[in-house]
Amino acid sequence: MTTTPMTAEDRLIKLGIHLPDAPAPFGAYVPAVQTGNLLFLSGMLATSGHAVKVAGIIGKTLDVKAGREAAQIAALNALALIKKQLGSLNRVRHVVRLGVNVAATPDFTDHIAVADAASELFRDVLGNETISSRLVIGVASLPLGSPVELEVILEVRLD
Amino acid sequence: MTTTPMTAEDRLIKLGIHLPDAPAPFGAYVPAVQTGNLLFLSGMLATSGHAVKVAGIIGKTLDVKAGREAAQIAALNALALIKKQLGSLNRVRHVVRLGVNVAATPDFTDHIAVADAASELFRDVLGNETISSRLVIGVASLPLGSPVELEVILEVRLD
Amino acid sequence: MTTTPMTAEDRLIKLGIHLPDAPAPFGAYVPAVQTGNLLFLSGMLATSGHAVKVAGIIGKTLDVKAGREAAQIAALNALALIKKQLGSLNRVRHVVRLGVNVAATPDFTDHIAVADAASELFRDVLGNETISSRLVIGVASLPLGSPVELEVILEVRLD
Repeated sequence: MTTTPMTAEDRLIKLGIHLPDAPAPFGAYVPAVQTGNLLFLSGMLATSGHAVKVAGIIGKTLDVKAGREAAQIAALNALALIKKQLGSLNRVRHVVRLGVNVAATPDFTDHIAVADAASELFRDVLGNETISSRLVIGVASLPLGSPVELEVILEVRLD
Repeated sequence: MTTTPMTAEDRLIKLGIHLPDAPAPFGAYVPAVQTGNLLFLSGMLATSGHAVKVAGIIGKTLDVKAGREAAQIAALNALALIKKQLGSLNRVRHVVRLGVNVAATPDFTDHIAVADAASELFRDVLGNETISSRLVIGVASLPLGSPVELEVILEVRLD
Repeated sequence: MTTTPMTAEDRLIKLGIHLPDAPAPFGAYVPAVQTGNLLFLSGMLATSGHAVKVAGIIGKTLDVKAGREAAQIAALNALALIKKQLGSLNRVRHVVRLGVNVAATPDFTDHIAVADAASELFRDVLGNETISSRLVIGVASLPLGSPVELEVILEVRLD
């Protein structure tokens, strides 16, 4: 008996995840640019359509739990955009870089717990073999008041 | 009758834009590094020579209009550096990533209006076919007090 | 008489630098991802093991000198990780991008002096021919309270 390994699209179904519509640009830019086998996404916010689903600063008006929910919303937007750009999530070979920008106070220190919510969702859908390098920073504020913005650079399969 | 499409250098002349001198490094780094057909610029500030032309925090001492002017100054510095590095703006195939770091207060939310000033200038000079992915964040402060710093990654023509 | 040029590993010995253990991930990510001949490191903090060696905000609880020390700790962590990933520092062809995220107050302006401490260490060990492009920003806060976080993208020798 042989088994076929699960794909990212299989895992999406198994996890019962319904992806939102892929975010459209808010300004004079495009959703993503591919150069060679690298795909650079535009910053993914905790938005639905052109409005934020949650707004605030973590450590001030929002706690870590709310920050993790915002990170998951942004990560789902990223997955929706990746699927739209590539046709299938199965074309992701590696998440080269996941940058997590957390709108946070100067005395906040638990950025990692917020960022992990995005990393864990990517890992659960895209698979262990795609896990990213990561860069997490606490910023003063983000567009539209979003508490989280994701930077995503992918290596994609060209075949 | 055939028409020749306008190039980036043509558009620069038509728009009447005079580029400044390309910024020189302020520290132990180089202005740009090319790897394969990707060119990574160092952060471009709202500077002329080694001094900022405008300083402050948007939402506190500066408004969106002043932020847009700072973004345009930084974008002109970027174009000047690209021309110096590549010999001609016509060698830009794509702006893979435009990162716009805006020095902003925690309650500022209109980062996109500031960032668009840089994106629009790039589009008007480099052309619609080069439009970037984009990442916009609000930071606590920037070198020399500049209100804006641009991150630029380009795909260049090697032929 | 012929002379052999010094390598990065030679310079490390000559400078008497003992590298720390390479940092292990704090969350759901990997230390570094290589795609083609580009190596993306995860963010390097002023840590030893899973604790920060220095914490605070520059311009508030820390001065530039403390910030430079934090930048050097993070740069040594980066060198240790590069050596672990590549087997030898001699495989670094270029530091394509050095991003220096400085936890700073809104009125801080001397980010360059902090960033240069990392750039100078990289240059002294990896050599003049590897000097990076650079992007320096002042952020609100960083994971674990670290005053500095480095972003590093390298071009590596594949032979």
